[in-house]
Amino acid sequence: MLERFKVPKKDEVRVPIESLQEVIRAVFEKMGNSESDAIEASEVLAMTDLRGVETHGVSNMLRAYVSQYTSGQVNPTPNWRIERETPGTAVINADKGLGVVLGRRAMDIAIEKARNVGMGIVTMNNGAHLGAVGHFSMYAAQHDMVGMCATSAGRGVLPTFGAEGRFGTNPISIAAPANKEAPLLFDAATSQIAGNKFSLARRVGSDLLPGWISDEEGNPIMEETPVPGGEGVNYGSLLPMGGTRENGSHKGYGFLMIVDILCAFMSGSVPSVFDEEYFESGYKHYFAAYNIASFTDVDAFKNNMDQMLRTLRETPPEPGSERVLYPGLAEYEEEQDRRANGTPLHTEVIGWFEEICNELDIPHLQTM
Amino acid sequence: MLERFKVPKKDEVRVPIESLQEVIRAVFEKMGNSESDAIEASEVLAMTDLRGVETHGVSNMLRAYVSQYTSGQVNPTPNWRIERETPGTAVINADKGLGVVLGRRAMDIAIEKARNVGMGIVTMNNGAHLGAVGHFSMYAAQHDMVGMCATSAGRGVLPTFGAEGRFGTNPISIAAPANKEAPLLFDAATSQIAGNKFSLARRVGSDLLPGWISDEEGNPIMEETPVPGGEGVNYGSLLPMGGTRENGSHKGYGFLMIVDILCAFMSGSVPSVFDEEYFESGYKHYFAAYNIASFTDVDAFKNNMDQMLRTLRETPPEPGSERVLYPGLAEYEEEQDRRANGTPLHTEVIGWFEEICNELDIPHLQTM
Repeated sequence: MLERFKVPKKDEVRVPIESLQEVIRAVFEKMGNSESDAIEASEVLAMTDLRGVETHGVSNMLRAYVSQYTSGQVNPTPNWRIERETPGTAVINADKGLGVVLGRRAMDIAIEKARNVGMGIVTMNNGAHLGAVGHFSMYAAQHDMVGMCATSAGRGVLPTFGAEGRFGTNPISIAAPANKEAPLLFDAATSQIAGNKFSLARRVGSDLLPGWISDEEGNPIMEETPVPGGEGVNYGSLLPMGGTRENGSHKGYGFLMIVDILCAFMSGSVPSVFDEEYFESGYKHYFAAYNIASFTDVDAFKNNMDQMLRTLRETPPEPGSERVLYPGLAEYEEEQDRRANGTPLHTEVIGWFEEICNELDIPHLQTM
Repeated sequence: MLERFKVPKKDEVRVPIESLQEVIRAVFEKMGNSESDAIEASEVLAMTDLRGVETHGVSNMLRAYVSQYTSGQVNPTPNWRIERETPGTAVINADKGLGVVLGRRAMDIAIEKARNVGMGIVTMNNGAHLGAVGHFSMYAAQHDMVGMCATSAGRGVLPTFGAEGRFGTNPISIAAPANKEAPLLFDAATSQIAGNKFSLARRVGSDLLPGWISDEEGNPIMEETPVPGGEGVNYGSLLPMGGTRENGSHKGYGFLMIVDILCAFMSGSVPSVFDEEYFESGYKHYFAAYNIASFTDVDAFKNNMDQMLRTLRETPPEPGSERVLYPGLAEYEEEQDRRANGTPLHTEVIGWFEEICNELDIPHLQTM
């Protein structure tokens, strides 16, 4: 994550992961989730914050989930069911259950199918927010699979040359295991930036960079610009990955489509741009597990991954850059630091926790 | 394709597709291919030019293939074989056979598996160039599948922050059928531009745009720059999709990795960056077929695709843009035009055809 999105030292309060997880669990139980579902959600969200994926951790998402459970948009006791199934595939209707809670169950089905026929694909329709898609890819990687996961919802992202949003930020992820190196974990929106980056930038007082968003007419804004929502910001939509056509936004547009096909069309649902009412068709998700042993020797695969990840890590950097990372390395390092030294939350987020713990009458978040 | 890469009207000669296909077929037979393999290659390459994908049509690739067959790098009579197989997956050793010739056979296997278990994945190691990956995705779409295809080879693309190339241009594609609209077909390198864009730009005398390539030290070149190979061009490597870190090159880097994992690691091979000698591990490919009927109703899927593609096509354009395209629409329109009016080739390419037809003693290319 770029420095501009991180919590400034002066505003950070560190909290121990055990306490954070306890509070998340208590919040989910108060929202009507069963104990086991609440534990599941607390593990997913805490892990996301441990990895430093603050866009999708507690700072932004926990209050969103509380609001969605409270309004009835999300169902805390979903009667989720398999609608269509083959030996290698399944389509699940999530009954408006939160993806954070149901995602691992979908990936478990994909993993079982992959063990049987080499490959498992599970799609989910009529769902709610999934959290960080990388979490579920990583879960598959922990089972000697290559995991992929994606999610689709919303209509705030432009197609190339367009003036009206047609896509969600449509993130996609992959994870693959190694032996000695930290696993590969890539997770990114196929728009220029994730929508949640707005909340982070607003909280820490950063501007957005050129080529990230468009104005109301669809023109890419090619200078630094304040976060939309503030006064005098002529904001239209997010731009596809790439930003401008010259810089490859038609590729971002194609990847936005890939995610819509895998998630919305292949779950027998429709993309959000068809919805007459907000959230009508829900969030749509995609889970894939490739059983490595069906393709090659698992040890050889992991040793090759080690060599690849080391080769990337040891690549000479361009002038002015300290080192080359690989996807997942910074997240792994962050996790070690945060397990030892606590997770940094912004004072504004700490304030929200104070309020919600009072309101729900649950034990307060400890700080370090 | 940006205007800057197209053959200028003054330099173009139109040729009828039937004649082009006949010449390609004769060339492949002279290179030692069987008649059926030569026909297959001629269909793939002619279709690529019909769609206007000039980077991967005859202009650049036919002479490359001739040179590779002549040097023995590519095997015209490969003994390709399945090395590992499950009901949903197969790994093929291509025995250095050209992907252009073998690609459809791999996708045929993926399609059959998808009919049986919902999903078929075929990877191919020890291969040679695949041509345009979109061709094979489209082939699957013609069988009521969602098709995906990718290929990995080379080491000319930087990781973010890096100063030495670690990846090929690693293109990936998807295709999905519709009822009334032209099918969706997306095919793009996960580097900023395909390597073959160099040859096109050089042939038509265009410069490259800011943020597409780096200098020798790995610094992104942020102004227009002549094509590398010319005098005084300090060229290092291609940049990942996105270009700079601020503009999202870490996402391009992640997609480069996705393609390497699907193609190289999942075919039991290694990425080119491990090769001690050029082309040692060959090209590695990935073919995926998703049986739409295993996920949802095929008619409903195609009708939803129609609605989506129409919605994109009818999106109001940003100021200064004529219209919004969807991936595959321009290619479809190009195909109609070129079938009727011939395929435009640069005079330099026509000259090469003159020479090779003389040299191989085969009938000459007709012009219109």
